[in-house]
Amino acid sequence: MKIGILGYGNLGRGVEYAVKENPDMELAAVFTRRNPAEVKIQTPNVPVVSADDAKNWKDKIDVMILCGGSATDLPVQTPKFAEMFNVIDSFDTHAKIPEHFSNVDAAAKNSNHVAIISVGWDPGLFSLARAYGNAILPDGKDYTFWGKGVSQGHSDAVRRIKGVKNAKQYTIPIDAALEAVRSGKNPELTTRQKHLRECFVVLAEGADAAEVERQIKTMPNYFADYDTTVNFISEEEFYKNHSGLAHGGFVIRSGSTGENKSHNHIIEFSLKLDSNPEFTTSVLVAYARAAFRLYNEKNFGCKTVLDIPPAYLSAKDGADLRAHLL
Amino acid sequence: MKIGILGYGNLGRGVEYAVKENPDMELAAVFTRRNPAEVKIQTPNVPVVSADDAKNWKDKIDVMILCGGSATDLPVQTPKFAEMFNVIDSFDTHAKIPEHFSNVDAAAKNSNHVAIISVGWDPGLFSLARAYGNAILPDGKDYTFWGKGVSQGHSDAVRRIKGVKNAKQYTIPIDAALEAVRSGKNPELTTRQKHLRECFVVLAEGADAAEVERQIKTMPNYFADYDTTVNFISEEEFYKNHSGLAHGGFVIRSGSTGENKSHNHIIEFSLKLDSNPEFTTSVLVAYARAAFRLYNEKNFGCKTVLDIPPAYLSAKDGADLRAHLL
Repeated sequence: MKIGILGYGNLGRGVEYAVKENPDMELAAVFTRRNPAEVKIQTPNVPVVSADDAKNWKDKIDVMILCGGSATDLPVQTPKFAEMFNVIDSFDTHAKIPEHFSNVDAAAKNSNHVAIISVGWDPGLFSLARAYGNAILPDGKDYTFWGKGVSQGHSDAVRRIKGVKNAKQYTIPIDAALEAVRSGKNPELTTRQKHLRECFVVLAEGADAAEVERQIKTMPNYFADYDTTVNFISEEEFYKNHSGLAHGGFVIRSGSTGENKSHNHIIEFSLKLDSNPEFTTSVLVAYARAAFRLYNEKNFGCKTVLDIPPAYLSAKDGADLRAHLL
Repeated sequence: MKIGILGYGNLGRGVEYAVKENPDMELAAVFTRRNPAEVKIQTPNVPVVSADDAKNWKDKIDVMILCGGSATDLPVQTPKFAEMFNVIDSFDTHAKIPEHFSNVDAAAKNSNHVAIISVGWDPGLFSLARAYGNAILPDGKDYTFWGKGVSQGHSDAVRRIKGVKNAKQYTIPIDAALEAVRSGKNPELTTRQKHLRECFVVLAEGADAAEVERQIKTMPNYFADYDTTVNFISEEEFYKNHSGLAHGGFVIRSGSTGENKSHNHIIEFSLKLDSNPEFTTSVLVAYARAAFRLYNEKNFGCKTVLDIPPAYLSAKDGADLRAHLL
């Protein structure tokens, strides 16, 4: 399988590492909107090509993995590239998935390609956990917790405050809430009861710390509904201790069965990730294998993780999986 | 969807409860090898029929859920009933799955039916966790822990010892082992380091407690490789405190990615079940829905959970799932 990468940031680099772990795949080319001469990749003898020249690679790439952002890149790129390639994206704006699906489906069906969208861990593996949990325990409740990990959107919101030079925001699930859910009590939890928000802020010269803290803690939608801690630190400490991209979270389905619903069951799926982009791209690469199989079966159009048989992610055949993993 | 149940023990009763949770299903009939007049079920106005008369129900059952045991019932029943119906079983003798698959596949293909075998939680949901984990983190290690819960096989082994009137054996995962795995250290764990075995034994009149304990703790394969505790209790206490069927367990994939493999990731799936048979049958019933969909698509033959797209377990359509669960 020949893999192409579109966009060489954290995700692009992650795909490059992940392809090396899969002996049935090879990286064919990296496509960039920057000047290709200025993009240095890790893999020797793999060309870096202008994204505008992708149309000349139609027969040389089995699956193109799109590594752009959900806000502005993917809504345009995924339908456009699905006209030319089988594609995988990690579109994660939950509310806009139906619209994105419909645009990508039209493009992929029109050109006889396969597109798998919203691949990663949420949406992605967490969606799988929710879907299995709901189907198996129809009488139950879903709980999703995120963290501990960096929220890019919340970090950006803090950085936009006057007087802030740099900032990182960690989303932290509250242990007491997790334990209440695991106990099978099906608690109703407020926003404040589920997650804490912790900020590490480097102030600009002469900034008013108290005023920055007030603005963070009262920011509607982002912080006002949470218990938030704000820590002011030096730029040195910021780069030393807050450059990581760790993340994770928990999906719990709690449901009951039987006479009088007297038996409770907890299905829990959790992730603890040292690198959010490297794990996300490991998922993208596994689904690239599935996309190529669906393409070979002429099962064209747009799909999500919910449509893909688990065995399609594996390089092993059915007999091998039944003998060793089932 | 019209559901049939073959065999009315713990699993059969569990299917009966689970069908009630799913408004798109109804119980059509219960089939038994006992005298039908002596089998009392919960649902009013549903017939109990002799298993020998199942052949007269071919057009009245969409999916037959087979609730027999793996040792002697299912190897015979599943191929036989796959000649007449779409079927689901919970065959759980891991080593014999390839042979069972092949027998059932031939029968189902011959008669244009769908059979999904080895459905439940292990094999079943735990197999899914292993398959996703292996595909996403190819450079990693699998860990499966069972419990805390009752092992039927080990309880039976204790009951066969002379002087034992009744016995229950609990398999208990060792916290220190779980924590070592979760830390990302990828430990090599011996059998003894992963699980404890705890026995509750009611002695027969005049039995030699020390001798019973010695025989349990030194029993090859079952107990000799484990740290085992033996508790002697009264029959009264046995029925009061050890009649439950709770179970559960953990599947953990620990793997690394990136430059120098410096980033570790933990994918953990766990179950905490008040009733093993009721949860198992909730899984069987969800896969019955998938079997009927595959049948309507004329995708005949034998399948396992690894072959089934997650969306096929849900009564909701793709657009609904994408909007609310993805």
